[in-house]
Amino acid sequence: MQLGMIGLGRMGANMTRRLRAGDVGVAGFDRNPAAVQELVAEAGMRAAQSTEALVGQLAPPRVLWLMLPAGDITESAIGDLADLLAPGDIVVDGGNAWYRDSMRRSALLAARDIEFVDAGVSGGIWGLENGYALMVGGSDAAFARVLPLLRILAPAPDRGLVHTGPVGSGHFVKMIHNGIEYGMMQAYAEGLALMQGRDDWTLDLAAITEAWRHGSVVQSWLLDLTAGFLARDQALAGVQPYVQDSGEGRWTAIEAIERGIPAPVISAALMARFASRDSGNYTARLLAMMRQAFGGHATLPAAEE
Amino acid sequence: MQLGMIGLGRMGANMTRRLRAGDVGVAGFDRNPAAVQELVAEAGMRAAQSTEALVGQLAPPRVLWLMLPAGDITESAIGDLADLLAPGDIVVDGGNAWYRDSMRRSALLAARDIEFVDAGVSGGIWGLENGYALMVGGSDAAFARVLPLLRILAPAPDRGLVHTGPVGSGHFVKMIHNGIEYGMMQAYAEGLALMQGRDDWTLDLAAITEAWRHGSVVQSWLLDLTAGFLARDQALAGVQPYVQDSGEGRWTAIEAIERGIPAPVISAALMARFASRDSGNYTARLLAMMRQAFGGHATLPAAEE
Repeated sequence: MQLGMIGLGRMGANMTRRLRAGDVGVAGFDRNPAAVQELVAEAGMRAAQSTEALVGQLAPPRVLWLMLPAGDITESAIGDLADLLAPGDIVVDGGNAWYRDSMRRSALLAARDIEFVDAGVSGGIWGLENGYALMVGGSDAAFARVLPLLRILAPAPDRGLVHTGPVGSGHFVKMIHNGIEYGMMQAYAEGLALMQGRDDWTLDLAAITEAWRHGSVVQSWLLDLTAGFLARDQALAGVQPYVQDSGEGRWTAIEAIERGIPAPVISAALMARFASRDSGNYTARLLAMMRQAFGGHATLPAAEE
Repeated sequence: MQLGMIGLGRMGANMTRRLRAGDVGVAGFDRNPAAVQELVAEAGMRAAQSTEALVGQLAPPRVLWLMLPAGDITESAIGDLADLLAPGDIVVDGGNAWYRDSMRRSALLAARDIEFVDAGVSGGIWGLENGYALMVGGSDAAFARVLPLLRILAPAPDRGLVHTGPVGSGHFVKMIHNGIEYGMMQAYAEGLALMQGRDDWTLDLAAITEAWRHGSVVQSWLLDLTAGFLARDQALAGVQPYVQDSGEGRWTAIEAIERGIPAPVISAALMARFASRDSGNYTARLLAMMRQAFGGHATLPAAEE
């Protein structure tokens, strides 16, 4: 078994390590030469200097696995591969692409008889050790061809791996997975903030979350991680209250809106992330002014910059 | 070690079994004689015919553990115990009481030198086998006295057990725990409903949730249970879309409101439960009429009863 890995960031590098530990031959390319060299030295990956060189190093029928940021970078890489690959080759996108982009890209590749597989990959930095949960869309034939590779990446050959259906469904299911993740994270964070808000008691959030890990209804892997960082520091004074998003929550909310299916919690969790970044808070300024306008309530002066 | 258990429903009965398996002497009372007899026969519990008889069967200083529905039933039982118990005895409320009621009841008992411990208990019907997560409020002295019992109920003597602080804090932490649970449940349910809504694909929710259990960021005990029932039936056609609540989510939302701490996801999850029961949906009727009033949009006739 062998494959070409394009993108050797946090996810791609660890997946390469796990594949190599499973005796898969991996040739890899990344725009950052240091990332390539590290995996050559450490994991016996074969280095490629470009996407074109990578394709040349693999014998057809090839499997090219992309672990790139969603959006233009993935789009451009697939465009390159469309020109470089041969009929019968397979492109697997393991990134967090929007499933509609994946369906479009699959059609582009299919016109050249290149197969496309959209593989939602979950597990973060723990996947190297624990394995990755894999939600995989694609034809039965393409899925069967990449299955031996998927079994090595998964937590076990028969666990954490699902063929979700046709192309697009893998990234769709991963999108929903991440939408759920937003809601879970926000639920935990709200509850912990309510406990932290009790200034009459000194609730030990580290001890409480640690206790919840065992026997409680809210036990989860996210809770394990949360108890872990709270044990080191529960004030979190050094952490800016600013939450990024990578797009999956937005797409989940868009799905809810386009289909008319209510998703109030996932949507509210997404909006809470947006609010965390809105340091100007023009909305709150407007509300303060409206209260002044109809009720004469005083506004507070803005903090000095 | 011994204690008196009042309330032998699903939770109290299984906790009695777990305590008996740990060689704790348990005398028990329930208004339902069959529940008492079952535990006498099966677990070697000593039967009591009344709260008064139960207290008489225990040597002071006593520990009385309540596993009763929150509200009037708990209130009444604690009122009875205030008259029956002696200084130095301890009342443990393991039910889902509002922490402010627990603080008030503690003061009532303290006036008679009876100690009160509020023990939040999580684990549901699985606690018998797995142990219960215990969040326990009360004085250091009272906590120390019940600690040997708590260690038997917990998943392990050193796990799933936390002394949260003074009286009230145990039920407060349990309240927050359940508020978080509402948000998590709603997040999973919304995501799964979005997948079920894809009529162009047939996404196998049982296979997907089973895969998520291994290696994914959303893995949790709730997901384990969800994958379990979806494996048996994922249409859920026989289940009325009606969700009860036991009060903990309401109290969490009230806490957020009274303290001015935002909890949009927990609150939205609570409101979604209310909406599930609102078959009349007067709100939606009003909205339909408002659209008609300003835009001439047709309303649909009500379904026949």
